[in-house]
Amino acid sequence: MPEVFKALEEASYGHQHSYGKDEYTARAVEDFRKIFGEGTEVFFVYNGTGANIVALSAFMRPYHAVICAETAHINVDECGAIEKQSGCKLLTVPTFNGKLTVGLIENHMHGFGDQHHAQPKMVSLTQCTELGTVYTKEELREICDYAHEHGMLVHMDGARLGNAVAHLGCEPREITRDVGIDVLSFGGTKNGMMFGEAVLFFNTEPVKEVAFVRKQAMQLHSKSRFIAVQFSTVLKEDLWLRGAAHANRMAQKLATEAENIPGVRVTQVVEANEVFAIIPREKIKVLQEKCFFYVWDEHASEVRWVCSFDTTESDVIEFVNLLREELC
Amino acid sequence: MPEVFKALEEASYGHQHSYGKDEYTARAVEDFRKIFGEGTEVFFVYNGTGANIVALSAFMRPYHAVICAETAHINVDECGAIEKQSGCKLLTVPTFNGKLTVGLIENHMHGFGDQHHAQPKMVSLTQCTELGTVYTKEELREICDYAHEHGMLVHMDGARLGNAVAHLGCEPREITRDVGIDVLSFGGTKNGMMFGEAVLFFNTEPVKEVAFVRKQAMQLHSKSRFIAVQFSTVLKEDLWLRGAAHANRMAQKLATEAENIPGVRVTQVVEANEVFAIIPREKIKVLQEKCFFYVWDEHASEVRWVCSFDTTESDVIEFVNLLREELC
Amino acid sequence: MPEVFKALEEASYGHQHSYGKDEYTARAVEDFRKIFGEGTEVFFVYNGTGANIVALSAFMRPYHAVICAETAHINVDECGAIEKQSGCKLLTVPTFNGKLTVGLIENHMHGFGDQHHAQPKMVSLTQCTELGTVYTKEELREICDYAHEHGMLVHMDGARLGNAVAHLGCEPREITRDVGIDVLSFGGTKNGMMFGEAVLFFNTEPVKEVAFVRKQAMQLHSKSRFIAVQFSTVLKEDLWLRGAAHANRMAQKLATEAENIPGVRVTQVVEANEVFAIIPREKIKVLQEKCFFYVWDEHASEVRWVCSFDTTESDVIEFVNLLREELC
Amino acid sequence: MPEVFKALEEASYGHQHSYGKDEYTARAVEDFRKIFGEGTEVFFVYNGTGANIVALSAFMRPYHAVICAETAHINVDECGAIEKQSGCKLLTVPTFNGKLTVGLIENHMHGFGDQHHAQPKMVSLTQCTELGTVYTKEELREICDYAHEHGMLVHMDGARLGNAVAHLGCEPREITRDVGIDVLSFGGTKNGMMFGEAVLFFNTEPVKEVAFVRKQAMQLHSKSRFIAVQFSTVLKEDLWLRGAAHANRMAQKLATEAENIPGVRVTQVVEANEVFAIIPREKIKVLQEKCFFYVWDEHASEVRWVCSFDTTESDVIEFVNLLREELC
Repeated sequence: MPEVFKALEEASYGHQHSYGKDEYTARAVEDFRKIFGEGTEVFFVYNGTGANIVALSAFMRPYHAVICAETAHINVDECGAIEKQSGCKLLTVPTFNGKLTVGLIENHMHGFGDQHHAQPKMVSLTQCTELGTVYTKEELREICDYAHEHGMLVHMDGARLGNAVAHLGCEPREITRDVGIDVLSFGGTKNGMMFGEAVLFFNTEPVKEVAFVRKQAMQLHSKSRFIAVQFSTVLKEDLWLRGAAHANRMAQKLATEAENIPGVRVTQVVEANEVFAIIPREKIKVLQEKCFFYVWDEHASEVRWVCSFDTTESDVIEFVNLLREELC
Repeated sequence: MPEVFKALEEASYGHQHSYGKDEYTARAVEDFRKIFGEGTEVFFVYNGTGANIVALSAFMRPYHAVICAETAHINVDECGAIEKQSGCKLLTVPTFNGKLTVGLIENHMHGFGDQHHAQPKMVSLTQCTELGTVYTKEELREICDYAHEHGMLVHMDGARLGNAVAHLGCEPREITRDVGIDVLSFGGTKNGMMFGEAVLFFNTEPVKEVAFVRKQAMQLHSKSRFIAVQFSTVLKEDLWLRGAAHANRMAQKLATEAENIPGVRVTQVVEANEVFAIIPREKIKVLQEKCFFYVWDEHASEVRWVCSFDTTESDVIEFVNLLREELC
Repeated sequence: MPEVFKALEEASYGHQHSYGKDEYTARAVEDFRKIFGEGTEVFFVYNGTGANIVALSAFMRPYHAVICAETAHINVDECGAIEKQSGCKLLTVPTFNGKLTVGLIENHMHGFGDQHHAQPKMVSLTQCTELGTVYTKEELREICDYAHEHGMLVHMDGARLGNAVAHLGCEPREITRDVGIDVLSFGGTKNGMMFGEAVLFFNTEPVKEVAFVRKQAMQLHSKSRFIAVQFSTVLKEDLWLRGAAHANRMAQKLATEAENIPGVRVTQVVEANEVFAIIPREKIKVLQEKCFFYVWDEHASEVRWVCSFDTTESDVIEFVNLLREELC
Repeated sequence: MPEVFKALEEASYGHQHSYGKDEYTARAVEDFRKIFGEGTEVFFVYNGTGANIVALSAFMRPYHAVICAETAHINVDECGAIEKQSGCKLLTVPTFNGKLTVGLIENHMHGFGDQHHAQPKMVSLTQCTELGTVYTKEELREICDYAHEHGMLVHMDGARLGNAVAHLGCEPREITRDVGIDVLSFGGTKNGMMFGEAVLFFNTEPVKEVAFVRKQAMQLHSKSRFIAVQFSTVLKEDLWLRGAAHANRMAQKLATEAENIPGVRVTQVVEANEVFAIIPREKIKVLQEKCFFYVWDEHASEVRWVCSFDTTESDVIEFVNLLREELC
């Protein structure tokens, strides 16, 4: 985002204390607190993997386990980093739409106190999910209440939180801190930043340990101001939310148009900025060459199309035309 | 086993080099080689968890993954020790009878070379399985061939290998080394020993590293002779196999008798020393008090009955009578 | 020890619950409490490496550090197992006689709260030390007081605790629990047992976690009774202390005699069952062939001679004669 | 650096493949190869801790050990991250000037093949050192030759490599690849970049594994082009070296001037951009408030002054005047 560049350049003048003791870092922390409330503790890290691991490791010991959806990013896309870094086990459940429910979580709610059994300690959910669906406030609250009643905590992977907020038309804290989320990975890279993510602790119990956990996780940036100032920029005047809302609209448009093309079947309800669709297998390669996207499920010939803050309407139209050309 | 005690006592006289440089250890290694062939490399450890971890860690780096059945002991009964110790991910598949097949393994055969994806490196199977079923020689060979063709290796958790050998009426090496198993956890504790297990490497590539892996895994016994002499004893004149064959017969008898009792449904074919059965939920507690056994699946009211080398026919009859009394 | 064998055999009759729920385990725990006081929590493990790691890991997170002597067993003889298992750093200090002091510990008492610096959390000392010297009650209390005042805890590696108790002529709890030790690795293998060690928690804060830490550390023995009954045997009527006192006397005798031989220089005061001596380099090999011992410091031509509960006076005389023959 | 900003902004236009498959990454790799020679394998990471861990982990297994100076950054400033991430032990040696020598390394060259002993595998040295001194080409070659003869490898932590190159007036590859360094952490953050470091493998044996090691180490940046384009910029026309040469000159000037002030004793020869000096203890605080610097050794009242690419002559003069004012 151009605003981000401008801010970065301004922040580069003059000398600042390093390792987070600078004024940009202090200001960005305040910016987060304005949104998520006083008492929120904020730690900046480099990337999403780092954010998730710092968030989870702060609360867990190696004999603990994390319950998550089979499709969760921490399960399928981190090269086993969670297990390597925390020593913990992931207990996964298949879902239809990427969303955990209390019923699904219950599958793993046994073995407490049994020394042979990794002890469930965290529920980790992704908002919006890896399948582009969005948890409602009520769904989240139900999961958090259930977890807390059973002595467990809830982590939200919010790499795309903005898209969920935009979809629900709520305040960010209504679907995070207010429903009982204990710790949140707040995405930066997917919000137009050059690099950097934030971990927000609403449950501040382990907060004295986090700086050490982060350092050992190689996620402490010496020039912290360069992450901080980007966050201040995207948070200012809801820039991140406006970008997300736009991306959602583009995805909506893409889905609506694409569904009308014979041979395309949209497989998930489009609530955020992602469209999942089954298309003819033999057309995937030629389409990818003209406009890159990922295959989601090779077996089912299902692909994933993602819109971002800078996807324009004409980008969408162009891609839909391309689809129509190749498929019809 | 009384033979084991006698041998232990004899081995305790006189001084011996420690840490495996004693003559008992050398002899036990030779005893294993007589059964599994020249070139087999043998490492003694304390317990089954240790055996599995030394076996797997010797071949893996933390970004690797192990494919195994959802019911595998390494997945459900080690308190996450595999993940903690190796840093590796377990990729599990549901099975009907505890047995992996090439078809089931294929579910996880993707993402090779993709840096976001833990790289499948080992297949781990249990012989006989956690559900008391036994892989045939052909089934094993098919899995090993498939794994090797795809650059992967095969580990066998043989905590109950003797029961499988007894069931199949084959030589031990026919269903291990000869079908292509790379590394075997050979059970001692479940074969009448006081403590101790062995890891047998047929694929000896990592063999120079194993002593260090074992030491760091806290599995090196200073008085190695006391593990070794127990193995020499149980291996001698097939004592372990005779015990296993007896246990299998007792399980067979138990299953046959129990099936005739109304309210009992045996759920798995009985090929080894374990009987899985669904019984009325409300009777479980009272039965356990008179004769302890584990509940296998609380939800389904399924229990597991295990026979051992020292289970007598009258033990079985007594238990069957107890069942009949309580259930009829 | 013959008493140990007898007890093991008796314990093998009949069936018992596994994983520590048997009556032998309960009894051995009580035996420890009689010596170390009510409230002592006892966990059995396989070996000394395991005992030290369970003791330390129960209190530490990976960003913590352990302060210990450069000669500490956990530093030099565990193949890096402490680092691998706990993720923690060892902060070592050179000592003259294997003993830590407050002054030596102070070398590492900095960097608290600094996220770049591993946080000192435990002091680990060995009683008697790896150099055969014995901490007095006062020395121990000074270290414990200092550690506690600075928010740290103290671990004692007591693989040879009996030799220290015998030397000081005190009660075991006077130099452990009473001086402020938080957790003790209590040696079994070096007290005449076949296998097995115990971890004694006087500071019971992490006690709910220890069973899981132990399981993940592969140190849970299914047939726990076989470790327990050995401990009950060696603890009974101070068998372990009588053995240790005897070993100390033999070491004393050996040192006294050896010092009179030209070419032998005893380098450490002999307070326990070990004698450190510099002998002519060219004689080491020929002596080792006749009676095995370890070279302690190749550079200095220093060797270590160890006496045990079953070393006889004639063993000592024979060895001294051998020395005299070879050296004179 | 302003050049860096301009390049970053240009790189932000248009879409690029992520995770290192973009053209900026390819170009930066080529830029490195122009300097260090064909066959150099380059991996971008986030920070220095990450660079060192990826470099070391690629070659090591957890039972290995790294020999380094007691003052090495990996030993004192990483919060134990090396131990946590690799499981390996650090074997440290005290040095006079931060430089390892073959003689110092030899202190840890024992225990090879002994399963109780962490196996020395890597020598890690820092160029220029943490004490601002610079290894000559000959010194480096001697260490590399020695390591290789003993089956070990050499890692160079080159966070400040530019300062060493500028001091020696040589080509970068003359003191890295050409003398036998196996793997190099190449600093970016200390060369005027906003974030990002590079790991250069001259020994490419583990190169197929590095992408996975990096991902599990949370060091893979999705928008890799933003690290890459910064490197291309600082490497271009030796921008990094010119900055380093300037910083060295400023440090030289500062040392020369400061030495003339009564009460200041420069403690290390100034070969790069750092000046170590003992100053009156009671003056440290007041000086720090006016111009921040770190205390190096509290005990000795030794401080560290660092000059960077953007330190001006008037900055130096101003600081010297401040010193004179406060101390005279």
